[in-house]
Amino acid sequence: MIKKLLVANRGEIAVRIIRACRELGIETVAIYSEADKEALHVQLADEAYCVGPKTSKESYLNMTNIISVATLTNCDAIHPGYGFLSENADFAELCRECNITFVGPSPEAISKMGTKDVARETMKKAGVPIVPGSHGIIKNIDEALSLAEEIGYPVIIKATAGGGGKGIRVARNPQDLEKGINITQQEAATAFGNPGVYIEKYIEDFRHVEIQILADQYGNVIHLGERDCSIQRRLQKLLEESPSPALDGEIRKEMGEAAVKAAKAVDYTGAGTIEFIYDYRNRQFYFMEMNTRIQVEHPVTELVTGVDLVKEQIRIASGEQLSLKQEDVTFHGWAIECRINAENPEKNFMPSPGRIQMYLPPGGLGVRVDSAAYPGYMIPPYYDSMIAKLIAYGDTREEAIARMKRALSEFVIDGVHTTIPFHLKLLAHEKFVEGDFNTKFLEMYDVMNT
Amino acid sequence: MIKKLLVANRGEIAVRIIRACRELGIETVAIYSEADKEALHVQLADEAYCVGPKTSKESYLNMTNIISVATLTNCDAIHPGYGFLSENADFAELCRECNITFVGPSPEAISKMGTKDVARETMKKAGVPIVPGSHGIIKNIDEALSLAEEIGYPVIIKATAGGGGKGIRVARNPQDLEKGINITQQEAATAFGNPGVYIEKYIEDFRHVEIQILADQYGNVIHLGERDCSIQRRLQKLLEESPSPALDGEIRKEMGEAAVKAAKAVDYTGAGTIEFIYDYRNRQFYFMEMNTRIQVEHPVTELVTGVDLVKEQIRIASGEQLSLKQEDVTFHGWAIECRINAENPEKNFMPSPGRIQMYLPPGGLGVRVDSAAYPGYMIPPYYDSMIAKLIAYGDTREEAIARMKRALSEFVIDGVHTTIPFHLKLLAHEKFVEGDFNTKFLEMYDVMNT
Repeated sequence: MIKKLLVANRGEIAVRIIRACRELGIETVAIYSEADKEALHVQLADEAYCVGPKTSKESYLNMTNIISVATLTNCDAIHPGYGFLSENADFAELCRECNITFVGPSPEAISKMGTKDVARETMKKAGVPIVPGSHGIIKNIDEALSLAEEIGYPVIIKATAGGGGKGIRVARNPQDLEKGINITQQEAATAFGNPGVYIEKYIEDFRHVEIQILADQYGNVIHLGERDCSIQRRLQKLLEESPSPALDGEIRKEMGEAAVKAAKAVDYTGAGTIEFIYDYRNRQFYFMEMNTRIQVEHPVTELVTGVDLVKEQIRIASGEQLSLKQEDVTFHGWAIECRINAENPEKNFMPSPGRIQMYLPPGGLGVRVDSAAYPGYMIPPYYDSMIAKLIAYGDTREEAIARMKRALSEFVIDGVHTTIPFHLKLLAHEKFVEGDFNTKFLEMYDVMNT
Repeated sequence: MIKKLLVANRGEIAVRIIRACRELGIETVAIYSEADKEALHVQLADEAYCVGPKTSKESYLNMTNIISVATLTNCDAIHPGYGFLSENADFAELCRECNITFVGPSPEAISKMGTKDVARETMKKAGVPIVPGSHGIIKNIDEALSLAEEIGYPVIIKATAGGGGKGIRVARNPQDLEKGINITQQEAATAFGNPGVYIEKYIEDFRHVEIQILADQYGNVIHLGERDCSIQRRLQKLLEESPSPALDGEIRKEMGEAAVKAAKAVDYTGAGTIEFIYDYRNRQFYFMEMNTRIQVEHPVTELVTGVDLVKEQIRIASGEQLSLKQEDVTFHGWAIECRINAENPEKNFMPSPGRIQMYLPPGGLGVRVDSAAYPGYMIPPYYDSMIAKLIAYGDTREEAIARMKRALSEFVIDGVHTTIPFHLKLLAHEKFVEGDFNTKFLEMYDVMNT
């Protein structure tokens, strides 16, 4: 078993990982930027070291410094969390070279899934449904135009190195397409150092449904059901739930099996998520991408399956077999997660960093709070704006919604604006309550003014 | 369904009840003493009214004022929580006369179970095992002496109107017994207005194991498994868990069935607890008493069964049938509750009221906090000293213990002494970890100095 683990992250996910380690009897080393000296993950870890100035690039993305800390403190493993270095194949490779266990898949699996055209081809070969589109990177505009003619407009242009909603553009006609490809290529070259783009049929009316998988080093792969993450704003998820109100048993089974196939196709190990476009009107789903790391929204899966995903990650990385088989995975109740961000939903979700004054998270039955905030905590403006993940569990979706509403209404966060008022409105919205929504929900409805 | 409910209590249980009501769409009215103006339950309820000065007698026990508030605010129900008026048959009767639903059993059931000699006789008739002892109240010393000779010393003297560890005395020889009866009678006359005492064989080496039951108005009674509350200090519970490490399947089944019999014998309705003396060396259990109300430690049962006991109480009081049958009750995992009190475990658990400065409850997977505390909260010295109930859930006892330890170590409560250091020591104690303990555990081991 891993004995000492460096947490290469900050915020709530760093706290989440430290908690799992503490429960497993693993020593923890935190790293932090100069802006995070007072951060909770620094206070909770057994040891903590500053790895650089406030910018992510110089601190949380500073591979050399992070590896140095791990080596000097005799860590035998690094957990990258999500974001930052979590899907960086070079970093996973560097860990391997330094004989440090990277809590995640192999650099090869990260690379394959991280390069969208390669991922797409791999999935196609593995028999995982993919959206009709280009076979790999677009070579020139003419190729793109004739392909778009064939699959039909609208099409979506995606940077092969993009992700998380970045490097994506929709084209509804040939003019759009030509312009879009040029811009996306330029942006991708700048942002990701890789100008490659590809195109796909753009499915407008879909739900974002993803499958959690776990895979050990012995070829065992299981899935833990789905999460519905269709409630998004500019491709950023705001609320996630499990199960999905849109899936029936048959589709759920097919999607789960497809996810297992996808993971097996890249010899995946660890926890991962296969994101699908679910064209619910036609009951068709398509591979969107794989996130080769723990996700922000992993708690909803933990609450409906009873599986501690972060502990499983650590056990898998330690060389243990999966603690359960597919037939042991059972689902109970309903879980919803609301991301409480320091943003002002009245003003177009403008970021609202600053000092939290009074802070009191809700409690009681069926309520889980994952957060790195505390009274007096100064939210730095350099990283993401998440203050807390509030997760409510109930026997039914109705109970989970009722519990989430009461938990949101109890949550005290003074000093900054938060997305709590947004979530309260969302959870009271007729269409949300009916489960009748897709990824365009927040474009279709002005939730704050209903 | 109940539409508007008055919560006749304070502290965490008042908050617990308000939460359940909010999730059920029931309006809430809080009451408070002059010392509790700033209390969380006052802030969370829809309405709140002061019912008297700081002493319990003049406020939380002030039946007239409480009923007046309920009537004036059009409440159709009163939930008494635990302590205060929760086991007061006169109050339940008063509610009935005023056409207000008392969330609890009938005055008759409260009376029967609240009068220890009557309860004992009722249980005996119902076939629930009772400890050998006097049949009803001791008439004179000679009767007691000859009975004690018959059942053997040590014997325990109990005030028939006592409870919660009050009005109890052990006698190891005839001299002790004579003196003990005289003192207990005098004390009971003063404290409870009823000098009646009875004697029983004193089982020294036992575990306190109790069964949670639920009964509706249609004669349906189910049990929800046991809680082990053997970790006590001066008969006050400090840590509770479910399941009990001491029970096997056979005893668990027998005890559950005995509890259902006990409830049926008094036409019980609502949530209740049958406390048993479990003589584990001889695998015998005996009826100790019934608590005709929700218990402090109810959350551990909620976590292993998935049943929301407070919601069930409210549904039953509203005239609904039980939401599940005995065969639907399933048990998963292990739950432990630590009572975090404002007491100094280094100084013989001396009460430590005062103002809480920094306050940050732990969070994350498998952790539940039920509390009415917040940063800056002034703990009044007039009521109990509980700051929070911390409940940890895990797949196994080992995981629940590990999780509790990490949660305790994260819990920030500055400004007052707390029992957190005690619980950390207890959870690390070899005998506790092995599950090898009885109600004398804290007399046998100096936990704070191990």
